[in-house]
Amino acid sequence: MMTVIRPGTSLLTLVNVFQTTPENQQKLLDVLTIATEEAMSRQPGFVSANLHRSRDGLRVVNYAQWESAEAFEAMRNNPICRVHMEQAERLARPDVHLYDVVSTSYPPATATS
Amino acid sequence: MMTVIRPGTSLLTLVNVFQTTPENQQKLLDVLTIATEEAMSRQPGFVSANLHRSRDGLRVVNYAQWESAEAFEAMRNNPICRVHMEQAERLARPDVHLYDVVSTSYPPATATS
Repeated sequence: MMTVIRPGTSLLTLVNVFQTTPENQQKLLDVLTIATEEAMSRQPGFVSANLHRSRDGLRVVNYAQWESAEAFEAMRNNPICRVHMEQAERLARPDVHLYDVVSTSYPPATATS
Repeated sequence: MMTVIRPGTSLLTLVNVFQTTPENQQKLLDVLTIATEEAMSRQPGFVSANLHRSRDGLRVVNYAQWESAEAFEAMRNNPICRVHMEQAERLARPDVHLYDVVSTSYPPATATS
């Protein structure tokens, strides 16, 4: 399996940007990894979660895909998922929004296109 | 071509989160689309740019991939790219950081895995 970014699908993209510190970044990643493996990935409609670490230590980004906003909202209301989310939010301030992919761009006229 | 998120590669991921308003969101997307097509995608080391629109109108995310931090920094110092970036930054506040992909997760034990 792999995560593909593509415009024009019905997938919901969730981007959650956590403001953290170099001291807390790894701890936050550990908490989000466990949350994803044990709770979010087992919910109906989950497609993928992709954790990113900023090189300056100040951000963690979760780029996640769900089949629909309804599936995502059902996860948010699941008590087990809630416990995991609250644990992450005690470590770092989240900024979560729901997105659609507008466009993808690549280098013009590459040899392989 | 397609954009794939994968841990353990040497790619640099840039996530730029713009704070915008429902009134300015489309204008910002237009400016970023032109900037990507006319300037960024023509720079050495550019791999992909993927524009996202938040459903609440408050964010635009550019999820971009570069071959290296050096290639990204060279683009930032290119005067033509600078003009495009400044145009976007007059419309919305950016929050740009450089990332590595830590992990990708999928639903456990799916029929197709």
